Amino acid sequence: MLSFTVQRTDSRARLGRLELPHGTVYTPCFMPVGTQGSVKTLTPAEIVEAGAEIIVCNTYHLYLRPGHKRVQAAGGLSRFIGWNRPILTDSGGFQVYSLAALTRVTDEGAEFQSHIDGSRHLFTPELVIEIQEALGSDIAMCLDECPPYPVCRPVAEAAVARTALWAERCSLARRAGANLFGIVQGATYADLREESARALLALDLPGYAIGGLCLGEASDVTYEMVGRVTPLLPADRPRYLMGAGYPEDIIAAVRLGVDMFDCVLPTRNGRTGTAFTSSGRVAIRNSKHADETCPLDAACDCYTCRTFSRAYLRHLFTVGEALGPKLLTLHNVSFFERLLQRIRAAIGRGEFETWSSGFLDGYRSKSETTAAGEDV
Amino acid sequence: MLSFTVQRTDSRARLGRLELPHGTVYTPCFMPVGTQGSVKTLTPAEIVEAGAEIIVCNTYHLYLRPGHKRVQAAGGLSRFIGWNRPILTDSGGFQVYSLAALTRVTDEGAEFQSHIDGSRHLFTPELVIEIQEALGSDIAMCLDECPPYPVCRPVAEAAVARTALWAERCSLARRAGANLFGIVQGATYADLREESARALLALDLPGYAIGGLCLGEASDVTYEMVGRVTPLLPADRPRYLMGAGYPEDIIAAVRLGVDMFDCVLPTRNGRTGTAFTSSGRVAIRNSKHADETCPLDAACDCYTCRTFSRAYLRHLFTVGEALGPKLLTLHNVSFFERLLQRIRAAIGRGEFETWSSGFLDGYRSKSETTAAGEDV
Repeated sequence: MLSFTVQRTDSRARLGRLELPHGTVYTPCFMPVGTQGSVKTLTPAEIVEAGAEIIVCNTYHLYLRPGHKRVQAAGGLSRFIGWNRPILTDSGGFQVYSLAALTRVTDEGAEFQSHIDGSRHLFTPELVIEIQEALGSDIAMCLDECPPYPVCRPVAEAAVARTALWAERCSLARRAGANLFGIVQGATYADLREESARALLALDLPGYAIGGLCLGEASDVTYEMVGRVTPLLPADRPRYLMGAGYPEDIIAAVRLGVDMFDCVLPTRNGRTGTAFTSSGRVAIRNSKHADETCPLDAACDCYTCRTFSRAYLRHLFTVGEALGPKLLTLHNVSFFERLLQRIRAAIGRGEFETWSSGFLDGYRSKSETTAAGEDV
Repeated sequence: MLSFTVQRTDSRARLGRLELPHGTVYTPCFMPVGTQGSVKTLTPAEIVEAGAEIIVCNTYHLYLRPGHKRVQAAGGLSRFIGWNRPILTDSGGFQVYSLAALTRVTDEGAEFQSHIDGSRHLFTPELVIEIQEALGSDIAMCLDECPPYPVCRPVAEAAVARTALWAERCSLARRAGANLFGIVQGATYADLREESARALLALDLPGYAIGGLCLGEASDVTYEMVGRVTPLLPADRPRYLMGAGYPEDIIAAVRLGVDMFDCVLPTRNGRTGTAFTSSGRVAIRNSKHADETCPLDAACDCYTCRTFSRAYLRHLFTVGEALGPKLLTLHNVSFFERLLQRIRAAIGRGEFETWSSGFLDGYRSKSETTAAGEDV
């Protein structure tokens, strides 16, 4: 069972301490994404060095390859991937809806075809719990129904109802004391969000997530939905906004009382050549960086910024060396983890508002786009 | 100027110490290949951790991208790539012949079209020295003419003559005291090898390389050529067999008095999924490794072997995670560096013959091929 303590609040922002089987996590926290059992390009030692205390892995992917029973036989996911800190496993609901060929969803479960070999599978709430318990994750997520954005109200209503039904079955199926989080759905309909939250609260789960956001809706809408849900959630349980996000989104959600975040942005953008820095985003392929002997971010102390110039990083991307994506990923994950460290420090001092507006002023000052106008 | 001391000999095998501007290298040594200014997938810190004391970079590639003047402006190659140990730069002769579209070779130089954008360039002995001095490498190589294998005698003869001519011009063009190595050519014709060596010896260079081997000829032929050349080379200068090779080739060449090696095998095979281990080669994609909780090489203390199972490494390759090629590369480079450490230790004890036959017995015991029969 997890233990969560809110150590300090600053308006609605919370500074917390989350005790999990594999270790302690300070919140608000950012969880790098290791979908297939690897935070792309990084060794576990580098993830630790970047400052992460917990990562997210994916049930759908690990169920298909290498298979949860194989991971269990190898001693569980932490041991298998060489990461001896906490792991949260997403339920795979999102991947079933977004990645697999979905063949049929009924109250029983979601039937899908593997995106790898077309093989047919049925994810039920019970199976998803069984997989996550075999993986031995510190926090398991309920199977949910996550509609795309935008979605009409009747579909969103049905997803809320089925998500509640499945959450109850997940809760019944879990081992006593297992750390299961419910997922609030409801798309962009505020009343459905509230209805979804209330249904899950009845299950008295150890934590609650907000899902089905950050799917392309305007930021204002995201924040409005988050702001409607967090006041309904119990103050003594961790709150997790799934898939967020940009530094500005994380700051906005912390202000609304969210404790946990995950996003592929630092890893994905690192691979494609965009770095997050204290003065905004840097598109490292841009020719203006070809002769810059300064580090990516002079305010950063990560290995990449301590060791290499922008000119060298650009060279690595220009010639297609794998070290380039890796060094930018390492920096980006470090940047996000340091951002969360600074958020926690600011809440601790009771200065979250002042600190965050100062940070955002600097961060928005010089963001670059690539030649193609890509704003990633 | 370099300083080279042979500290001990064991038959023809030599234990040496090579002092270079960026540091000391113990020989026989293995130099990982960082063609474009990056030993593929590895950070400089990992290359050090693997045990390498010197790496090889490539004049042809760095001249095209990012350009030697840009590297010079950034403080030289060591600083640019974050590697504060010695670097040997290959002259680019081999790449001009193997990679670029070669348009014309005359005594003046080699005219070629870039493999990247088709632009035309002329490599003269003088330019190749200028580039390497701009890069600031610890050891520069002469521009040579390197025919493919197999090659007829008249072409090999012409290459020997031109290589000698160009070596003289390289020697004249270099800064006083610059560490320039000549390259012995002569294909698989023993008398031409001897002729080439004698011509270069007249230049009294600080070191000599044997080029134009390990191009697909039988190992016996390689060893015969090396065995004909090394006795002609001065005992007090380092000897470098370019492009070798497999562990068995390195051992055979050390026995013939070679001091320095470079090869893409550990990095290239690491990326494609073949590991070198003390009991032979392991094709990590093979399904037999899917449930193996043992390390890649139980006799190895590298980060990969200390941290991960074969099952996890296979999973990374199966799902296409970049961490897989990186972890195998790290292991392979570590394996080669440890092999050379053991070779040096064996020579130091005067037991090179006994040690090497014991090593090769273990190494040949269990080598795997992939399902496709690929023996890499």
